[in-house]
Amino acid sequence: MKMSNMLISTLREVPAEAEIDSHKLMLRAGMIRKMASGIYNYMPLGLKVLKNVEDIIREEMNNAGAQEFLASAIIPAELWQESGRWGAYGAEMFRLKDRNDRDFCLGPTHEEVFTDIARNEIKSYKQLPLNLYQIQTKYRDERRPRFGVMRSREFVMKDAYSFDKDQDGLDISYNKMRDAYIKIFERCGIVAKPVDADTGAIGGSGSAEFMVKSEVGEDDVVFCTNCDYAANIEKAPSTPEKAEKEAYKEINKIETPNVRTIEDLIKFFNTTEKKFAKTLIYNADGKIVAVMVRGDREVNEVKLSNALGGVVDLSMASAEEVMKATSAQVGFAGPINLKVDTLLVDKEVANMYNFIVGANETGYHFENVNYGRDFEGIVGDYRNITEGENCPVCGGKITISKGTEVGHIFKLGTKYSEAMNAKFIDENGKEVPFVMGCYGIGVTRTMASIIEQNHDENGIIWPLSVAPYHVNVIAVNIKDEMQMKVANEIYEELKALGVDVIFDDRNERAGVKFKDSDLMGIPMRITVGKKVTEGQVEFKLRTSEVENIKIEEVVARVKEEFEKNKISIR
Amino acid sequence: MKMSNMLISTLREVPAEAEIDSHKLMLRAGMIRKMASGIYNYMPLGLKVLKNVEDIIREEMNNAGAQEFLASAIIPAELWQESGRWGAYGAEMFRLKDRNDRDFCLGPTHEEVFTDIARNEIKSYKQLPLNLYQIQTKYRDERRPRFGVMRSREFVMKDAYSFDKDQDGLDISYNKMRDAYIKIFERCGIVAKPVDADTGAIGGSGSAEFMVKSEVGEDDVVFCTNCDYAANIEKAPSTPEKAEKEAYKEINKIETPNVRTIEDLIKFFNTTEKKFAKTLIYNADGKIVAVMVRGDREVNEVKLSNALGGVVDLSMASAEEVMKATSAQVGFAGPINLKVDTLLVDKEVANMYNFIVGANETGYHFENVNYGRDFEGIVGDYRNITEGENCPVCGGKITISKGTEVGHIFKLGTKYSEAMNAKFIDENGKEVPFVMGCYGIGVTRTMASIIEQNHDENGIIWPLSVAPYHVNVIAVNIKDEMQMKVANEIYEELKALGVDVIFDDRNERAGVKFKDSDLMGIPMRITVGKKVTEGQVEFKLRTSEVENIKIEEVVARVKEEFEKNKISIR
Repeated sequence: MKMSNMLISTLREVPAEAEIDSHKLMLRAGMIRKMASGIYNYMPLGLKVLKNVEDIIREEMNNAGAQEFLASAIIPAELWQESGRWGAYGAEMFRLKDRNDRDFCLGPTHEEVFTDIARNEIKSYKQLPLNLYQIQTKYRDERRPRFGVMRSREFVMKDAYSFDKDQDGLDISYNKMRDAYIKIFERCGIVAKPVDADTGAIGGSGSAEFMVKSEVGEDDVVFCTNCDYAANIEKAPSTPEKAEKEAYKEINKIETPNVRTIEDLIKFFNTTEKKFAKTLIYNADGKIVAVMVRGDREVNEVKLSNALGGVVDLSMASAEEVMKATSAQVGFAGPINLKVDTLLVDKEVANMYNFIVGANETGYHFENVNYGRDFEGIVGDYRNITEGENCPVCGGKITISKGTEVGHIFKLGTKYSEAMNAKFIDENGKEVPFVMGCYGIGVTRTMASIIEQNHDENGIIWPLSVAPYHVNVIAVNIKDEMQMKVANEIYEELKALGVDVIFDDRNERAGVKFKDSDLMGIPMRITVGKKVTEGQVEFKLRTSEVENIKIEEVVARVKEEFEKNKISIR
Repeated sequence: MKMSNMLISTLREVPAEAEIDSHKLMLRAGMIRKMASGIYNYMPLGLKVLKNVEDIIREEMNNAGAQEFLASAIIPAELWQESGRWGAYGAEMFRLKDRNDRDFCLGPTHEEVFTDIARNEIKSYKQLPLNLYQIQTKYRDERRPRFGVMRSREFVMKDAYSFDKDQDGLDISYNKMRDAYIKIFERCGIVAKPVDADTGAIGGSGSAEFMVKSEVGEDDVVFCTNCDYAANIEKAPSTPEKAEKEAYKEINKIETPNVRTIEDLIKFFNTTEKKFAKTLIYNADGKIVAVMVRGDREVNEVKLSNALGGVVDLSMASAEEVMKATSAQVGFAGPINLKVDTLLVDKEVANMYNFIVGANETGYHFENVNYGRDFEGIVGDYRNITEGENCPVCGGKITISKGTEVGHIFKLGTKYSEAMNAKFIDENGKEVPFVMGCYGIGVTRTMASIIEQNHDENGIIWPLSVAPYHVNVIAVNIKDEMQMKVANEIYEELKALGVDVIFDDRNERAGVKFKDSDLMGIPMRITVGKKVTEGQVEFKLRTSEVENIKIEEVVARVKEEFEKNKISIR
């Protein structure tokens, strides 16, 4: 396309609304525009990239034997009531009523819909395995939409659902998706590593998230520096640090006026965090629950929720609830004389000696407390693993990075098929529930992640595979007839070959054109300037130096890049 | 794809929910499944056709210089409040609130959004003209969803919006779209004629609907049997039939007990419908309005609404409202002593002599009533044109057919740009509003219309251009090694060429395979049966006889069909 006819919306200024590089660059390059909080419009340039990413996903999904489907975004409440998630989904679900006052939601995900499809369309094991996928707009009313399309409320997702006759079949389907995802992210030009993920208390038998390392990632990902182990911190098991054995001392109540935080306590008792156990009070679906971890540890709320059998609504207890449970102000909670529905004790705490806890009395703590002698609870792993701890697989050292989830594969098993009575006739003539898997890719988030991993101070650096345009042909001086003629010929020749090419024929200074080209991240730039009189043009890759090339060789040079990148010109 | 791996959902029975052929066939061929009233899921087969139709639209839109865009489906209420349509859209708009209680709708159309984009992104006349389009899911909470995807509540639409600096520019943009639409429908294999359409009271300067003739169409389309004139009945001007001149007679009140309908009156007065004028009472946005037409005519509510300056909510008055306006029960309304806000009189009525009207008194009519002498009102064209009337262009005879609107092009002018203060700087440095056009195609409805126009008793007859698969290779006996080998070779060869081919390798009788192939509407069928031992296979077009062809010539025969249809194999 000729740029004089295009809607070019590059911005020189960094928009105030953007916090991270990909968001800034998507706005500056004119790829997206905000419609409302977490809701974006895709401008022509952005949509082209989105479609390219979608096409890569579609191709690999088809190669893996999956079939494309398209479900409605509006879903009747009844399906969600059947699975039990209508209530469970909470405020994140956009809900609406039609003119007859019937309840619907805008699909945040489609397990229910595809389980419904399967129970209606699949009668026999002979029709299995089956994997249906869609590339579709999803809706989640996030509490805190942010980072542009990285966490938005209306976004494009690829979701797939596999149906197998047994667990072995599911394992095969799951591994096919795992392999396909690895190819997809590779082709998109990003490093996305599959890491072990939590499956939830009532979840399935296995799950992995595809994580891209990112400073602004909202997940903490645990990697072993020695072996291949990688897991979401939600899932990674912690190993209790061994406390030095001591003889039990006598318990002692100490007046600790205004000493509420761990920092205060360390000063007051002149000891280390490792001698304290903190007791945190939660409201878990209306029940009051306490969890104890060592003073320097963080509670892992996913582990906590799983231990409680799956919690929909988990939040720190209110000051009032704390007062009711501890008979004290916030800051003095402890396990002794605590009035809660459940007390969970991290296994590290259960192995500590003569430690300090709140006394459930404002202004007091107990010292020399010991698990078993002074209190009891449900012992388990309720804390986050920390940097430098031992790898749960090989014992090597753990490192933790921020990451963003771009994909998720999940062995659902029979969770939905049982809840929704979705069955088929097996080889023995028996009705059995489908064994299911589900597989998601955040398509718009993948697009943003590509930029996070591929940019410099001048703009985006698109991998050729997803670039909105492969080549930008620039005429330096549009009033120079020869420059325009040669530029136009190169443009037309590339177009005829099937290369996605733009021709910057705008009446702008060359500097502006170069800046726009770099900002938009076009992989190849052909500049037709003064040297055209010597039969030469400039060829430049986005991040390399200018090459002077004979006019008649420049198209071959473009083709060479396609070959190098193993991408066929359409 | 091999059919043994595909989700095939053909049905032998005609589903009870379907009334029209396209709906029946889309269900029977396994293209769509109902999720809720007017909300459908697209099964793999249906989605393939949908994508093919989309691709044709995309190609022609791009050829016409339009640029693809993708706006969000969720739109903030504020934009609609600016244009004044938040209130005006009524119950057809799906509305929802987010977790912060902000109002949104699911876009039924996107004029506001694109006007907003233009005012933010386009500063100067130099950036014009511009045409932005999207292929996107739209939401309309229809009062009566029906006919499958023909009138559904969640549907795919191509909507485009053009921005020009003046009316001349708009005319060019509009005509480009008109030409593109003609090509699109032609390529989709349907006859869709552009017909004059109503632009509404505050609408723009021109509009055409692309109509396909259809017995189940919800529009009446007026065609001239002599010239090219074609218009929606909403728009087509009527020509008053000349009444024979008579001398005014004395007005006379007649007792007409229980004579309420035109049929009753004809009997009672022993005359024809042409001697009566009926007076219909409406509630138009809360105002009570009467409209008079000749006894045998139908009121045209669009003309009525336009005459009143554009009515949002037009309905027949309630019995109570009629009583208030006429002081009589329903059935005795007339123009004399009528208490309404406005009285509209069709020009035909104004030219009648000594006619009969209700007396606004239960059980009474007036005879020998004459316009001007006995009552006055606003005279205009308020009725539907009827079969056999004169063409408003050439005077030829009119014929009326049912039609379905598959596309609509509309010169909006400055309606939205003025309401939303969307302006650019013109050549003279002055701020002026964009001159806009909008252009829609019902993509899913087009798909259904293709089937309406292309099917027989055995199933769908897809035009090659949109067929889900071009060729179906059938092995008659999958236990016959030679048949399977040859069928597989043909399948692989066609696939390698880029032909969209399926291989029916299912363990089913040949009859079942043939029936499914015809039902699904695959244009070409290659049957590998017993004659394979003689080096022959069968080639069959969907609606032609079987041709016996040498194995080595069958691929060339397929290519020949592509050439005949001027379609390039991808």
